[in-house]
Amino acid sequence: MNTPLPSHLLPEIHQREVPVALIDALKARFGDRCSTALAVREQHGRDESAFTTVPPPSAVVFAESTQDVADAVKLAAQHRVPVIPFGVGSSLEGHLLAVQGGISIDVSRMAQVLSVNAEDLTVTVQPGVTRKAVNEAVKSEGLFFPIDPGADASIGGMAATRASGTNAVRYGTMRENVLALEVVTAQGEVIRTGTRAKKSSAGYDLTRLMVGSEGTLGVITEVTLKLYPLPEAVSAATCSFPSIEAAVRTTIQVIQMGIPIARCELIDAGTIRMVNAHSKLGLREETMLLMEFHGSPASVQEQAETVQAIADEFGGQAFAWATTPEDRTRLWTARHNAYFAAVQSKPGCRAISTDTCVPISRLADCLLDSVAEADASGLPYFLVGHVGDGNFHFGYLIDPDNADERRLAEDLNHKLVARALSLEGTCTGEHGVGLHKMDFLRHEAGDGAVQMMRTIKRALDPDNIMNPGKIFAW
Amino acid sequence: MNTPLPSHLLPEIHQREVPVALIDALKARFGDRCSTALAVREQHGRDESAFTTVPPPSAVVFAESTQDVADAVKLAAQHRVPVIPFGVGSSLEGHLLAVQGGISIDVSRMAQVLSVNAEDLTVTVQPGVTRKAVNEAVKSEGLFFPIDPGADASIGGMAATRASGTNAVRYGTMRENVLALEVVTAQGEVIRTGTRAKKSSAGYDLTRLMVGSEGTLGVITEVTLKLYPLPEAVSAATCSFPSIEAAVRTTIQVIQMGIPIARCELIDAGTIRMVNAHSKLGLREETMLLMEFHGSPASVQEQAETVQAIADEFGGQAFAWATTPEDRTRLWTARHNAYFAAVQSKPGCRAISTDTCVPISRLADCLLDSVAEADASGLPYFLVGHVGDGNFHFGYLIDPDNADERRLAEDLNHKLVARALSLEGTCTGEHGVGLHKMDFLRHEAGDGAVQMMRTIKRALDPDNIMNPGKIFAW
Repeated sequence: MNTPLPSHLLPEIHQREVPVALIDALKARFGDRCSTALAVREQHGRDESAFTTVPPPSAVVFAESTQDVADAVKLAAQHRVPVIPFGVGSSLEGHLLAVQGGISIDVSRMAQVLSVNAEDLTVTVQPGVTRKAVNEAVKSEGLFFPIDPGADASIGGMAATRASGTNAVRYGTMRENVLALEVVTAQGEVIRTGTRAKKSSAGYDLTRLMVGSEGTLGVITEVTLKLYPLPEAVSAATCSFPSIEAAVRTTIQVIQMGIPIARCELIDAGTIRMVNAHSKLGLREETMLLMEFHGSPASVQEQAETVQAIADEFGGQAFAWATTPEDRTRLWTARHNAYFAAVQSKPGCRAISTDTCVPISRLADCLLDSVAEADASGLPYFLVGHVGDGNFHFGYLIDPDNADERRLAEDLNHKLVARALSLEGTCTGEHGVGLHKMDFLRHEAGDGAVQMMRTIKRALDPDNIMNPGKIFAW
Repeated sequence: MNTPLPSHLLPEIHQREVPVALIDALKARFGDRCSTALAVREQHGRDESAFTTVPPPSAVVFAESTQDVADAVKLAAQHRVPVIPFGVGSSLEGHLLAVQGGISIDVSRMAQVLSVNAEDLTVTVQPGVTRKAVNEAVKSEGLFFPIDPGADASIGGMAATRASGTNAVRYGTMRENVLALEVVTAQGEVIRTGTRAKKSSAGYDLTRLMVGSEGTLGVITEVTLKLYPLPEAVSAATCSFPSIEAAVRTTIQVIQMGIPIARCELIDAGTIRMVNAHSKLGLREETMLLMEFHGSPASVQEQAETVQAIADEFGGQAFAWATTPEDRTRLWTARHNAYFAAVQSKPGCRAISTDTCVPISRLADCLLDSVAEADASGLPYFLVGHVGDGNFHFGYLIDPDNADERRLAEDLNHKLVARALSLEGTCTGEHGVGLHKMDFLRHEAGDGAVQMMRTIKRALDPDNIMNPGKIFAW
């Protein structure tokens, strides 16, 4: 598992000194809640990405309150030591790696739902609450929180990476669904951004500056989210297609007609084979769309009939319903497990995951050429997509000890990103930049915009202690 | 019209020197398109707010391209001279006043619709395009741009103030509907933020940092907006209520039930009297809700029937339909003209406009107490509200030469804002901070958050040339 980091990242990879005095001060302040055990440190120094080669953080602080976070940051700031916030560790982009050393602040114990305001469709939570826990807390009110990135990620982490997932086609991403934040700054000060009002023009949008800042501008200690009434009716359907192109053309037409579909996911035939092998599902091994419709019973039926008619035009077959919650859960679990099913299909492999997103009109161009390239490479891969948003993920399955496979996967990823950017898209729809996409970001945003990001970072965090070495080079 | 500026703003009001060399350089670069005529300068040194007492800018540059804007900013930057972007001049918060002198950059000639991407539901425009012009350009594609602040504002100005208006309850504000920007920075560099992809996690959200920055971080020179399919069916309705409370309770229930109402506006009885006098409409002179429903014919009917049933419960009467486009236009014109109708009801007056927005569950508390206070004051006022969002506007009608009326209006506004903040709301739902709400912002956001805004401003614009003296004190 010792996949080397790409050479362009090397300037950002250097261990800064963590003085014993800091560890002593943290132990004095936090007692048992400051751990320097190797196993704990190692668990906090990695994530789901293919990078695991840097040393772990020097200590892990288990914060239980905003004050804990503020005190830990203040102590670290006194010693100019990096601070890396940790939720559940489900990042795919190396966000949690201590590339410049430092300490990890684990917020998973900050897991209280602070207030549910059913009348206003808002909920305020601590950052360690996971998305499933939010839904558990609000379902008795007839409400739900739609953002679903697959993993049961922490809300703090989801805000920090501007996460989205399968429901974004209808409900938007964390960008649209975070109303307000509490944040501990690089100086250890506690600030609040936004209010519970639905809209505001009160100064710079610090909420959205923090959403997607990947821990580089502050530690999120409280999040106010939008909620939605549980739809009166929910129906999921699968439909098989003779080709990826047919599924993509169906998706494009559904979106362009303005059908308020809640989920529209693509899984290619090869990935379904992996899912069948992993979850014993017996799904038809052809390209498939998984769809979900939310609304009144009449509206759900109307949406589904329209979509079925469109799918028919493109050769869609075996349109099948999953109307019971159990059937739906089984389907979405299969979708969410695609990543694990794929990784288990090649023992010892790691997945290099792509995350491009393009305008829907460019989706076929972007996806089909990339499938042809991946097929030609001979590298096994999985392919799943939030195609309703123009976002899809290849996961190239590589032996981490095989430099050739690594190079091949990176080459495919580079070509895919270049294609997405030429089609007015983005290198990352939802995973964030982290370590792996720093070079892509420069190409996408341009030196001027990256320089503006850097200027903001340097102004707010002049000692570069907040998750350094991520998003862009210092 | 010589309303003095409040004393807390005085530190920000000081004329910086505009060297003759700069004016000469601008004339050499722009010829006739750089005007120093007093009438032109005066027109660019005021807006719709009650502040008109500072000297106008020293020159007005009529930009016709991004390069023009970049060159004008670069020349101003060389001389550390303030730059104030100007669209159509419809700001209500003093955004356009040259409180520290400088030059105005008028972008109204940058009025090209650059590309309509009907398949992706996006349009890219220059900043001087107005919202009505956007709608003209896209309606043949069966699309529309929903944000409607009343005035036919420029898209650049709407982005800069994070505008919204009557349709925000369903379609969101400029925050949700700007996908990408081109911006000229304080250094005269041209950067792009965002892409046409529907979602992205690629670095800091510079798009949303610029949206709502009120010209203090850069000049917006291009905007990519989201569009929506024109609804198959549109119906507007009015309903009269025995009290403001009855109308507000109806609104709260409509929103909490998740009915996707497109517009839900309140006008109080006194304002309807003014509108009737101004527009000869013969509307029933009681508190009224103006509503609009978008969707399929069946869904529009379902929504309207549900709303009518709710209104009935609260004593709503005279539910009346406006189904033809002409009838609807007449109604919405009346709503949009409320401001002008009110101002004309008291010759020589100016309106001090409030803009609080609170969570919907707090709307009745916030609004009713404020109505009681306004009534007790004896000051005439108008009251209109985007109540579906929890946002409403009092316009206190004052004689600008009467210091007592001024003080009375400011006192009412202060009490209203304090109440809204205590109810977890914001001092400005959609007008922006500008000059008038700087003090309110400090109370709302807190010193820490305002300090973070200031740190960003100082880092990106160290000479404070971009619309200085707005949002917060330097």
